[in-house]
Amino acid sequence: MIGINSDRLRCRFDTMAKIGATLRGGMHRLALSHEDKVARDLLGSWCRDCGFELTVDRIGNMFATRPGLNPDLPPLLIGSHLDSQPYAGAYDGPVGVLAALEVLEALDENDIPTNMPIQLVNWSNEEGARFRPPLLASGVFAGVHDLDFALSVQDSKGLSFREELANIGYDGKCKPGWPISGYIEIHIEQGTVLEDAGIPIGIVTGVVGIADIKVIVQGEDAHAGPLPMSKRRDSLVGAAEMILTAREIGCRHAPEARVTVGRISVPSDSHSVVPGRTEFVLDLRHPDDVGLAALEAEAKAAFSAIAAKHQMSVAYESVWAYPPTLFDERLQKEIARAARELGHSHLRLPSRAGHDAWNLARVGPSAMIFIPCRGGISHNESEFAEFEHIAAAANVLLLTVIAWSNGDLRLQSPEIA
Amino acid sequence: MIGINSDRLRCRFDTMAKIGATLRGGMHRLALSHEDKVARDLLGSWCRDCGFELTVDRIGNMFATRPGLNPDLPPLLIGSHLDSQPYAGAYDGPVGVLAALEVLEALDENDIPTNMPIQLVNWSNEEGARFRPPLLASGVFAGVHDLDFALSVQDSKGLSFREELANIGYDGKCKPGWPISGYIEIHIEQGTVLEDAGIPIGIVTGVVGIADIKVIVQGEDAHAGPLPMSKRRDSLVGAAEMILTAREIGCRHAPEARVTVGRISVPSDSHSVVPGRTEFVLDLRHPDDVGLAALEAEAKAAFSAIAAKHQMSVAYESVWAYPPTLFDERLQKEIARAARELGHSHLRLPSRAGHDAWNLARVGPSAMIFIPCRGGISHNESEFAEFEHIAAAANVLLLTVIAWSNGDLRLQSPEIA
Repeated sequence: MIGINSDRLRCRFDTMAKIGATLRGGMHRLALSHEDKVARDLLGSWCRDCGFELTVDRIGNMFATRPGLNPDLPPLLIGSHLDSQPYAGAYDGPVGVLAALEVLEALDENDIPTNMPIQLVNWSNEEGARFRPPLLASGVFAGVHDLDFALSVQDSKGLSFREELANIGYDGKCKPGWPISGYIEIHIEQGTVLEDAGIPIGIVTGVVGIADIKVIVQGEDAHAGPLPMSKRRDSLVGAAEMILTAREIGCRHAPEARVTVGRISVPSDSHSVVPGRTEFVLDLRHPDDVGLAALEAEAKAAFSAIAAKHQMSVAYESVWAYPPTLFDERLQKEIARAARELGHSHLRLPSRAGHDAWNLARVGPSAMIFIPCRGGISHNESEFAEFEHIAAAANVLLLTVIAWSNGDLRLQSPEIA
Repeated sequence: MIGINSDRLRCRFDTMAKIGATLRGGMHRLALSHEDKVARDLLGSWCRDCGFELTVDRIGNMFATRPGLNPDLPPLLIGSHLDSQPYAGAYDGPVGVLAALEVLEALDENDIPTNMPIQLVNWSNEEGARFRPPLLASGVFAGVHDLDFALSVQDSKGLSFREELANIGYDGKCKPGWPISGYIEIHIEQGTVLEDAGIPIGIVTGVVGIADIKVIVQGEDAHAGPLPMSKRRDSLVGAAEMILTAREIGCRHAPEARVTVGRISVPSDSHSVVPGRTEFVLDLRHPDDVGLAALEAEAKAAFSAIAAKHQMSVAYESVWAYPPTLFDERLQKEIARAARELGHSHLRLPSRAGHDAWNLARVGPSAMIFIPCRGGISHNESEFAEFEHIAAAANVLLLTVIAWSNGDLRLQSPEIA
């Protein structure tokens, strides 16, 4: 039976994990950093060594192409991202990119032709940790963002995406965005559904809706010494109460909802100043539109009541919002068939994290394959996935790619699988 | 009756307030910034125009000297600081420096000799907003800090005090620290004791003890999407509960205690990361040692309980600590006598803010004169003090300087006043 080379995949994974490796076994490889450049160079050298033509688009997305039999068919994309969150794990992203490379090589090594070209992709700045928003470059590819907007975003030091992309030599020439026959991405689940169920393959039904809202709490700056406690309008005290309330709202809407505050800043930033202004970002996630809207309405009502109680004001700015997205049913069925063929148990689940596949779903049939990660821990140096699950998912991807590209399933009815 | 020139003082105050003026009527003049340099240059030109010799020490403290009759007597220092907190007020600091210049000039204009030299001082980096800790340069002068330590501190961009002092041309030649006959500083109260009592002159009995403690809450980083609310160990949620508890502890120890969190940071700083680590600075103030220790013990006990409840850890680092300090009784009595002579009502009160006089109290008899500020609001662009109170305090300082320098009260008994 055909399959990927599991030893080579492991070797490449370990090598890639050394780039930006942290002392505690994690990964610090921010988008367009020196580490990102080294990782891209390594991926590029592997692709070229295997004879796959490498192209880079103007937002830095990398593509390695294995040609198809029919030059008129658009490519089937497979891949993920090589950038990481700060001090995060080595699995989030690279697993999908390196599995895709294995699929290209397995097709070559087994002399399997495909009707359409198969294209490995490494998306720039999936994480959005250094340059916001996340999913930036797949968003440009899918027409969600203007190229000029994306190139002009700046990191916290004021360096633009444009400059930094040029600095690392990945300001490519291709115009981003072209017709695709589909997109399939392998990724760690970053949750515990698969682990709890003891199942290696997750077929992702779609991505939950996410709304990020900047919350600005305005009280009054004062010296931390003289002003009595009773006369203060301390915006950080107000924000603290809002953060606890946000968590309660998330728990009240369990198990579907997620409510998180991951960014907070006090512009006065002085030990001796009662903070007049505090800003934080509220991240709301829910699989359906109505649930997402309810989270937002409850949080805003509660925050306004807290602000009023403390004689403060509160204002909101929408940072970004993605509605819930459903993945392609036929692709999901094809993945299920491949998993069955390989004897891997599988289940269907939604993704609660944003992924580039979310953007790609706008321009072609898209799907994702999840594998378990230990304790659901991700964006953390102790992130871990079993290598046998990575290899299993790569083989499921291989069979899915063969079926999808050669069956030209896009033209067939949903009943096929 | 001799007195300062109130119109000139007002004119100079208004001119100085334009340097770093903000759109909302405040002041943004961080230590060793371009604005600080312009303010120093202006002060220097005024001092030189009046014929007072200008010296700068190696930590950038500026001194303008009016010689005394007795060359063997150490100088009596009067002054304050020209730097500000970010987007703060125009009164905190400059009032004391410009009143001191008026005193020097009034002595000249009225041909009043003094036994000891009278020295105006502008202390570098009182606020500690850009370079921590605050009171840095008076601390070097008083032997609290090593000169090398102070020169090596860095701002948030990694620029050192040494480089930035040289950049603005205030890396002087004098070794900081020499014997003094005393130190007197006029400052706005930054609280509401004087305003509430309707009294223009406050005689400061000393400075409350201040302990700044960095609190490090450690939970576990996780992706904001997949991990269920119930499995999270969100350090910002723990910190939020601690911040609310800190406020409660402050209120419980009213009216003497002040408890503030003015700095907070989440190193992961990403909307999609459940914060594994949150750090904040707890600022505790109390007029007596026992009270200060009680605040710290109660806060730490409560924080540890909160951390344990959320399965997190909490660690503490002492950032800086000043014990309660009492000012010189004889100087306080001399200030009271001057106020009575001028017909100004006065009261005694502790300072709840750190001031350079706190450091100077280690090396010579020191005292402070407070004036009311509207609503107690300070470190805020709407900070305001009545000009007649500024002028009144300058006249009280003038009479105190004459009495202290000529009476050579240092050698007399405490019963003098």
